[in-house]
Amino acid sequence: MEKVKPRTLSGFMELLPEKQVLFDKMTDKLREVYALYGFTPLDTPVIESAEVLLAKGGGETEKQIYRFAKGDNDLALRFDLTVPLAKYAAMNCGQLTFPFRRYQIGKVYRGERAQRGRFREFYQADIDVIGDGELDIINEAEIPSIIYRAFTGLGLERFVIRVNNRKILNGLFALLGEAERATGIMHQVDRLDKVGPDKVRQLLTEEEGVPADTAARILEILGSDDPLAALAALKGQNETFDRGVEELETVCRYMTGFGVPEDHFKVDLTIARGLDYYTGTVYETTLLDHPEVGSVCSGGRYDDLAGYYTNKKLPGVGISIGLTRLFFVLEDQGYLNEELLTAPMDVLVIPMTEDMGPAVSLATALRDQGLRVQIHSEKKKFKAKMSYADKLGAPYVALLGEDEISQGKVTVKDMRTGAQTTVSPAMAARGIRDGIESLRGGAPIREPAAEE
Amino acid sequence: MEKVKPRTLSGFMELLPEKQVLFDKMTDKLREVYALYGFTPLDTPVIESAEVLLAKGGGETEKQIYRFAKGDNDLALRFDLTVPLAKYAAMNCGQLTFPFRRYQIGKVYRGERAQRGRFREFYQADIDVIGDGELDIINEAEIPSIIYRAFTGLGLERFVIRVNNRKILNGLFALLGEAERATGIMHQVDRLDKVGPDKVRQLLTEEEGVPADTAARILEILGSDDPLAALAALKGQNETFDRGVEELETVCRYMTGFGVPEDHFKVDLTIARGLDYYTGTVYETTLLDHPEVGSVCSGGRYDDLAGYYTNKKLPGVGISIGLTRLFFVLEDQGYLNEELLTAPMDVLVIPMTEDMGPAVSLATALRDQGLRVQIHSEKKKFKAKMSYADKLGAPYVALLGEDEISQGKVTVKDMRTGAQTTVSPAMAARGIRDGIESLRGGAPIREPAAEE
Repeated sequence: MEKVKPRTLSGFMELLPEKQVLFDKMTDKLREVYALYGFTPLDTPVIESAEVLLAKGGGETEKQIYRFAKGDNDLALRFDLTVPLAKYAAMNCGQLTFPFRRYQIGKVYRGERAQRGRFREFYQADIDVIGDGELDIINEAEIPSIIYRAFTGLGLERFVIRVNNRKILNGLFALLGEAERATGIMHQVDRLDKVGPDKVRQLLTEEEGVPADTAARILEILGSDDPLAALAALKGQNETFDRGVEELETVCRYMTGFGVPEDHFKVDLTIARGLDYYTGTVYETTLLDHPEVGSVCSGGRYDDLAGYYTNKKLPGVGISIGLTRLFFVLEDQGYLNEELLTAPMDVLVIPMTEDMGPAVSLATALRDQGLRVQIHSEKKKFKAKMSYADKLGAPYVALLGEDEISQGKVTVKDMRTGAQTTVSPAMAARGIRDGIESLRGGAPIREPAAEE
Repeated sequence: MEKVKPRTLSGFMELLPEKQVLFDKMTDKLREVYALYGFTPLDTPVIESAEVLLAKGGGETEKQIYRFAKGDNDLALRFDLTVPLAKYAAMNCGQLTFPFRRYQIGKVYRGERAQRGRFREFYQADIDVIGDGELDIINEAEIPSIIYRAFTGLGLERFVIRVNNRKILNGLFALLGEAERATGIMHQVDRLDKVGPDKVRQLLTEEEGVPADTAARILEILGSDDPLAALAALKGQNETFDRGVEELETVCRYMTGFGVPEDHFKVDLTIARGLDYYTGTVYETTLLDHPEVGSVCSGGRYDDLAGYYTNKKLPGVGISIGLTRLFFVLEDQGYLNEELLTAPMDVLVIPMTEDMGPAVSLATALRDQGLRVQIHSEKKKFKAKMSYADKLGAPYVALLGEDEISQGKVTVKDMRTGAQTTVSPAMAARGIRDGIESLRGGAPIREPAAEE
């Protein structure tokens, strides 16, 4: 028979088992942290009506979308988790209790040009808090705390959460007499960390028509070493600006209470975030040792989540982690914690008699104790069975020969130390459980020691 | 602005938060049980090349598939988790360790005619053990144990795992002189529980051309009250039959050792399973009180998983749970455990002062203790805040007024009993943790008491 070549599409991440375990530990950790902050899990379809998904329409999104017909239906695959949330909130607003806090970790689809580290199918891990008509600033102050606990939970330490407020930028441009050009200026400012201040100054004057002294002033203020002081000096001239500064000050004031250490939090007035629907606090998170990766967790405050579907005003604040790309980058940089237990079992039971009965009963007893157990039942030489345990990284094997069976015992071998003991099944379970506790608990990511 | 009506496509399950929590508890439980048996998690793309996905081709599958072009690529959405596994195993066989045990819980897509309880996007929860060239019968014996632990873990008790062996059926038809008509006979036998023995006898003679006495004989043997005895009496006439009987006896022999109670396990010679690739043990699982639902967990042994992709022989055994349909049926029948804690928080912190600082610090301290916490920060009346806690089913609220703050304490209210105590944050954490333990631990499903 002619064979079809088995292959996975380019731009689609598919991991080998050990890596998959680490990836899953990352999603588990995020789930755990999001739950600590009172978010409820949500799961929406991957396929939506194209009309619903593209209600906002236009731009890059539409070009990248996977869109197709099935019968009479014009369908599309979701390209983010925000639009489905907007649909869900608008559709179910009568049945939801607000503020509505939801997390969703799921795959989204964008038919981007394939290149290394870019994915067409990738996980996003999102949280959003959605208010009914209004939403207190404390929700914006809480977000950095969630980011901090999430990233440290994954095992990262060397990162910083950068925070700004869109009202400050809009207000600043207005009070400098450039309200009309605010969008264009914002667009150029957003490129600061890519092209640098000199280039942005040039773009502001040449492309946006901003007077040279105003452009210089903007860059001076945004790049200030003490941004809160620089902002304070400008108060009283523009209402939006003043509100933005007040919000930013409030966010900063609660950081310690929320458990975010000072060195992991930074006001950065140059952050604009491309998306035009942010209206308040905006967030970016960067890895100190890999700024070239860009922001690994971003988001912000918006005033109108679901305006395309409903007249109901649903303001909110949310962040998103591009988990597939983050995993790719961390693996690429050698950040995966190779010492973590990724074996699919805590113990491999190796029967050394014809009758499998005792091995089966032992496996059942160990599983009853919560241990993950495989029975090696294939007709192989002892050496091949041990090599199987070795290859999969099983921390323990349980050997069952005539002697053990007649004594009602089992010989447990610790695969790391080579130590063997012959004990009762109950003792074996206890010993193995104690032994794996440290192996199981670690974080999926381990930063290389910082270079001196 | 004209609004787009927010809607979810028909045939796509989208749950409200409380139901989603129960659904997630089901998948968590399956993950846990599958892990106990040494299966490693796998995640494959939802989109594959149509050529790869349809390598086997033909039949109902191809008509139902979501298939579309993107650029030059002919793509399709996976319609099960078995074909992607075959692709994965064939592609990575040099890097996998065999026997390879993997579980996968993921969404699959079939453009079926929409009707109540039928889904176009649904979760499958699959396990497979794949051998390299061979695979011991003990793996087939282990499967009912996994089904048993999975379903009891979900909270179900009234179900039975029915087991047969395809070699017995093929061998039986051969030893009765009907080898040529085996496929046709199998097809009719497969309909036994739908149309009954009389109709099948008629179909066997009229449609398949089986002599009347042979048809009667087949139905007599398959319907025997003591199937193992009936089979034993026929031994020695056909090699395939004898091997099938021996395999079935082996599977039965290990049931007790694997912890499957006798009343949850049954040899049923009428089970054929439609798919023609099964070659040994086959499984079906039925709910005693809802036989009309059909099998809720099925599978079997196959000899050649990936023959369309590779010459390497990869025999295996696997089962699949159609989780979305199962959830739909259980919800429909009132089986969801409404008493389980589905609130997104263990405690709602209600600040009763202008300054949110103490509430923020308390929330952080409680989260550090592993509790799920929301802060009610909206400017609402006290009654509205309590009603929010009530609606979401928060088991505890923590009240923080001037008095509590000045004493460094917090007033904890148990929302079920109404009892209030004013204690230190550490004591509060301990009390809440103890209180929620019982609420958190239950199974997502609860069977109604059997009617007398």
